[in-house]
Amino acid sequence: MAVLGSTGSIGRQTLDVVRALPERFRVVGLAAGKNVDLLAEQIGEFKPEFVYYSSADNQDKKAYNRLSDTGCEFLSLEDMARHPDVDIAVIATSGTAGLNPTLAAVKAGKNVALANKESLVAAGEIITGEARQSGARILPIDSEHSAIWQCLNGERQEARRIILTASGGPCHEYSAAQIKEVTVEQALKHPSWQMGRKVTIDSATLMNKGLEVIEAHWLFHMPIDNITVLIHPQSIIHSMVEFIDGSVKAQLSYPDMRLPIQYALSYPDRIANPQLPRLDWSNLSSLTFEQPDLDKFPCLRLAIEAGKKGGTCPAVLCAADEVAVELFLSQRISFVDIAHLIERVLEQHQKVAHPGIEEVMAADTWARERVLKLVGGDN
Amino acid sequence: MAVLGSTGSIGRQTLDVVRALPERFRVVGLAAGKNVDLLAEQIGEFKPEFVYYSSADNQDKKAYNRLSDTGCEFLSLEDMARHPDVDIAVIATSGTAGLNPTLAAVKAGKNVALANKESLVAAGEIITGEARQSGARILPIDSEHSAIWQCLNGERQEARRIILTASGGPCHEYSAAQIKEVTVEQALKHPSWQMGRKVTIDSATLMNKGLEVIEAHWLFHMPIDNITVLIHPQSIIHSMVEFIDGSVKAQLSYPDMRLPIQYALSYPDRIANPQLPRLDWSNLSSLTFEQPDLDKFPCLRLAIEAGKKGGTCPAVLCAADEVAVELFLSQRISFVDIAHLIERVLEQHQKVAHPGIEEVMAADTWARERVLKLVGGDN
Repeated sequence: MAVLGSTGSIGRQTLDVVRALPERFRVVGLAAGKNVDLLAEQIGEFKPEFVYYSSADNQDKKAYNRLSDTGCEFLSLEDMARHPDVDIAVIATSGTAGLNPTLAAVKAGKNVALANKESLVAAGEIITGEARQSGARILPIDSEHSAIWQCLNGERQEARRIILTASGGPCHEYSAAQIKEVTVEQALKHPSWQMGRKVTIDSATLMNKGLEVIEAHWLFHMPIDNITVLIHPQSIIHSMVEFIDGSVKAQLSYPDMRLPIQYALSYPDRIANPQLPRLDWSNLSSLTFEQPDLDKFPCLRLAIEAGKKGGTCPAVLCAADEVAVELFLSQRISFVDIAHLIERVLEQHQKVAHPGIEEVMAADTWARERVLKLVGGDN
Repeated sequence: MAVLGSTGSIGRQTLDVVRALPERFRVVGLAAGKNVDLLAEQIGEFKPEFVYYSSADNQDKKAYNRLSDTGCEFLSLEDMARHPDVDIAVIATSGTAGLNPTLAAVKAGKNVALANKESLVAAGEIITGEARQSGARILPIDSEHSAIWQCLNGERQEARRIILTASGGPCHEYSAAQIKEVTVEQALKHPSWQMGRKVTIDSATLMNKGLEVIEAHWLFHMPIDNITVLIHPQSIIHSMVEFIDGSVKAQLSYPDMRLPIQYALSYPDRIANPQLPRLDWSNLSSLTFEQPDLDKFPCLRLAIEAGKKGGTCPAVLCAADEVAVELFLSQRISFVDIAHLIERVLEQHQKVAHPGIEEVMAADTWARERVLKLVGGDN
């Protein structure tokens, strides 16, 4: 396998799974964007053939020399994702940077273990269309989509409804007044999942769940109207599927990303891994459920609307969110401004109905610039 | 299909499913033991080819004449279950009366939709052995076993653990002192399921769950030590399966037997049936779980022990329970006496390790007589 984004949260946990099951998986490529120290360490341990390191970093020269010394061949993200030696490309890069390697892998007919939400949200129609043509499979790594996929396993009929569960995030219990005052520190305190900063903020706004609705739509050919979001603070039920006879199946486990990662890599088998925790029912007395509050968390509403509009709207949603979250993290805008900015940008967007990849990228670029202009006071 | 036990609770609900989906199922045989009026009505509606009516009834002559007038051919339960025109035999008779027709159907290679717990509990080794030889499938109709079966669907590896849920029954909240005073009326008030009287009392003692543990052991080749009973008063999660990677799948629905009945009949397909209710998550705020109290409900412990001992012990458990429950329903013994009697009979039993069907039947007869003798004061 090749692990793109190996130094991030999902990348590191993917390597944890490989470490626990060395007889089953082999890493032939590693790619990272920022943490050259960890990347070099990973190369030392897993001895891949190929490496990618983002040239965006300022310490380029030193980092490249260090990685060259490992003997690995340098490849672009796209070339690594479609390399003949790669059976599964794990796309664990964050943001729209995951889009091109995902597309490259899918076009080459590779199975893609996909943790990157933005690719499918921004270009779901393109990616799933290419996968149909090439025979590539998209294996979801998100805990929610993995749950849905596990529940669909072996079923002959299409599902009637998907019930996507959400922890509610760190601000779930906040009042409307408290939401206005949310600090970066508060928004980064996720109650059940340890994740990267971008995803954690997206969890606090429920944008993360909105992106997952759009992702589920593409992964499972489910109309967005048949995808229900349900707040489940314990994060034990990772999602559910309702079938045409009214039967519902759910997948449960402690919140630990290593399980969905391993399932994507071992599918259609399951592998015993003693490091994965077992649910202890003597400590699980109650699972609770609530409806999401779309007024307090408008990002979920914006995402569902963008998903229904389709075309370039989800790409704009995604890109605007990425910039807005960065602005919030650098304390240039408030928590509620994230949704305001995204809403303004979506209002100003001229949708392209069935965009090609260039139009998706153009919408992405336009949306990013638009957010910055709006914050700069230019509208 | 042939429906054996068509006038009982499961039989009537089976015919509800057929009524809702007439283009999919055809009833060729009906069999009942007591309610000739309802049986005649069902014959009028479903126009089967074969009928069985228990000769145990006192109004024999009149009933037989009435059924003869319908033009149906009389068959024994066994002949109906194995008749060439029957694809699926629905065994919904209660008690050990289900054993011989189940065995006849299985030997003839018929698929058996099995609601009768006692057959598998008393003769699980024999029935599953015959099914392996003939290629017959045993399709569970119990909501719990249907849930497990649905969760196993499409999985390649055997499960690691079965988590069998139990509502806890009508006496779940009672104190140890209150348990001693339970009346027939109290024990018949089940909080979530509408069922026959025998099964409802078995739910109150948790014997029902104990029988299901033994049934699950045979249906899914699961060691009894790997079957965990969990009290779940809402009866929404009907059971769960834990896989070797720690992932757990659950099946959920409102407590309505028509769903597991329909699933057994439509398997491996699912069929849309507008009469089956859909879970309404706006009304489901909490699912709770507790460990069962084996001191307050010793029948569960007795069943698990008998299941582990194997041989003729589960047949003795089953038969002793059937008689003890009848004695309780006719107010000749108290609620706690049910467990006491079963325990005494099991203690006195000389186990046969791998019994044939005659030895199972002999153990059954011995246990019934033994209970009556103990109650009569003879030990």
